[in-house]
Amino acid sequence: MNKRVSLKDIAQKVGVSTALVSYVLNNKKEGRIKKEVAQKIRETAKELNYRTNLLARSLKINKTYTIGLIVADIASPFSSGMARIIEDEADKLNYTVIFGSSDENAQKFGKLVDTFLTRQVDGLIIAPPENAENQVFRLRQQGLPFVLFDRYCPSVNTNYVALDNYTAAYNAVKYMIDGGCKRPAIVTYDTTLFHMQERVRGYSAALKLSGIDANKSWIKKVNIINPKAAIEKAVQELLSLDEPADAILFGSNSIAVHGVKYINTLPLKVPKDLAIISFDETESLDLFYASITYIKQPMHEMGQLTTRILLDCIGKNNKVTQVNMQAELVIRASTR
Amino acid sequence: MNKRVSLKDIAQKVGVSTALVSYVLNNKKEGRIKKEVAQKIRETAKELNYRTNLLARSLKINKTYTIGLIVADIASPFSSGMARIIEDEADKLNYTVIFGSSDENAQKFGKLVDTFLTRQVDGLIIAPPENAENQVFRLRQQGLPFVLFDRYCPSVNTNYVALDNYTAAYNAVKYMIDGGCKRPAIVTYDTTLFHMQERVRGYSAALKLSGIDANKSWIKKVNIINPKAAIEKAVQELLSLDEPADAILFGSNSIAVHGVKYINTLPLKVPKDLAIISFDETESLDLFYASITYIKQPMHEMGQLTTRILLDCIGKNNKVTQVNMQAELVIRASTR
Repeated sequence: MNKRVSLKDIAQKVGVSTALVSYVLNNKKEGRIKKEVAQKIRETAKELNYRTNLLARSLKINKTYTIGLIVADIASPFSSGMARIIEDEADKLNYTVIFGSSDENAQKFGKLVDTFLTRQVDGLIIAPPENAENQVFRLRQQGLPFVLFDRYCPSVNTNYVALDNYTAAYNAVKYMIDGGCKRPAIVTYDTTLFHMQERVRGYSAALKLSGIDANKSWIKKVNIINPKAAIEKAVQELLSLDEPADAILFGSNSIAVHGVKYINTLPLKVPKDLAIISFDETESLDLFYASITYIKQPMHEMGQLTTRILLDCIGKNNKVTQVNMQAELVIRASTR
Repeated sequence: MNKRVSLKDIAQKVGVSTALVSYVLNNKKEGRIKKEVAQKIRETAKELNYRTNLLARSLKINKTYTIGLIVADIASPFSSGMARIIEDEADKLNYTVIFGSSDENAQKFGKLVDTFLTRQVDGLIIAPPENAENQVFRLRQQGLPFVLFDRYCPSVNTNYVALDNYTAAYNAVKYMIDGGCKRPAIVTYDTTLFHMQERVRGYSAALKLSGIDANKSWIKKVNIINPKAAIEKAVQELLSLDEPADAILFGSNSIAVHGVKYINTLPLKVPKDLAIISFDETESLDLFYASITYIKQPMHEMGQLTTRILLDCIGKNNKVTQVNMQAELVIRASTR
């Protein structure tokens, strides 16, 4: 790396004090410095390719106008879409977003938190992976403002913006039952992540409150890493039961994509033989003959709200805001 | 923000010198410090929640083990997929990646470059947006190692890993012509980005070398921001010519998705009435009745190579590596 140009280098070249250079480049004491001198200093700074040491400056004004965002898996459409929304919102408010992806790995998550903390971001927006409660708890003790989004840990009292996953799943399954389905199944991730467990809880409640005897084999859980084969197997098993499932709630859009592509190879008809609902949008299923009914999270509102709560907290980190948003069931052709 | 715990705080608590604390926490002079003292210092550091100031440390060892990645649009599958590949590769080599998205905006790009530079990354991986040549040129003068990927500026002599877009497009169009297509069209972005211009140049060369009189109205260019309506209009115009186009090369997977979804609403048959090739994979078209032939970029190799070239350069930034990789044409049902 080339040697960084310092205030002192500029001062020497112009023949003034380092303090004076600092005043000019930080726009201070403007009335008290001669215009020609200020201009000469600015020109020299430009000429020497001087780059403001934002970090040194931030130690004084205590703000870097940068926020860190840690998503669960940047390759997933939910994460990358949300990243874009948060970035657009932060940009409007003159904040720059730098992000990292934990790839659903708690260790990588910890490394990213450290990376951002040592780079003096003003705050963090985080979708924590499984088994990261302790790290979120420690982060809370550090005092840096942060907001969890999509996922939160009920055991740690922090800012978060999440979906009411229980109600969203409940409404979706209830809708299929009201449409005549007798044996609704769910295919979801095998995880302790609270927001995913809430989806299963909503599914189970809908069965119970509709007087349907729940069958253990209607709940299929697949590993969150490389789930394609497990999803196909799960669908196959659900359709091979003595009394086959007649409705499936897919617990995420990624699961739905693999599931529906597999169903497309089978000689059954959606929704006559099988009703389908996907949690989250599934643009990549738009060419399926029966457009898929889905649970729509208010992603824009969630991303914007998360960003605004964080920026509100920066500088006056004195309250905890927790928001559970309601989903909308977008009814299309895959349900009766 | 809470006050950061310093080496001095730890030294005072333990009752030793700040230098000794520094030696222990930086694993120096190990043989010369009493084990009990070292242990006490480590415990106190943990107790006080001391966080290594990586930045201060990096000023000495001149490495932060962090690289910055600036993609073109994090919401696009190419960018987010590539981000994941680069991150996995960097992780293997103990580097953490933090990224930003320029959203195809040169000003935002400049802001991100500044953000990363002032945060002392060891190097940058960059897909520059349109009109960012000057910023890439300035970056070159700064001396920080960086590698361009996907896109490069022929006017600036830098490391890059890109596709041979000319040959890729040439081969694809030649394949359609050899299959009997007489009037091949291209729908691509209206941009000065070199890699996109190369695709058009490859298209034109295939026509010329096959003895087909090129028709200006076969080349359709759409804005890179929100192109959906423009893509539908372009396809409509191509199919409404006195002699309609009988083959279309879509210049990116995003363009192909909108184009094919529109074509799916028309009463024509692919590939009999119209052959289709997409530049880049289009998983979200898997449910289209004719699976789409596509130009496959070696994304994994490109991401891995880009990362390795950057890490090679860090610390010994003394050579320029430029790689043009070859694409593969994956032939499926949408071409004859």
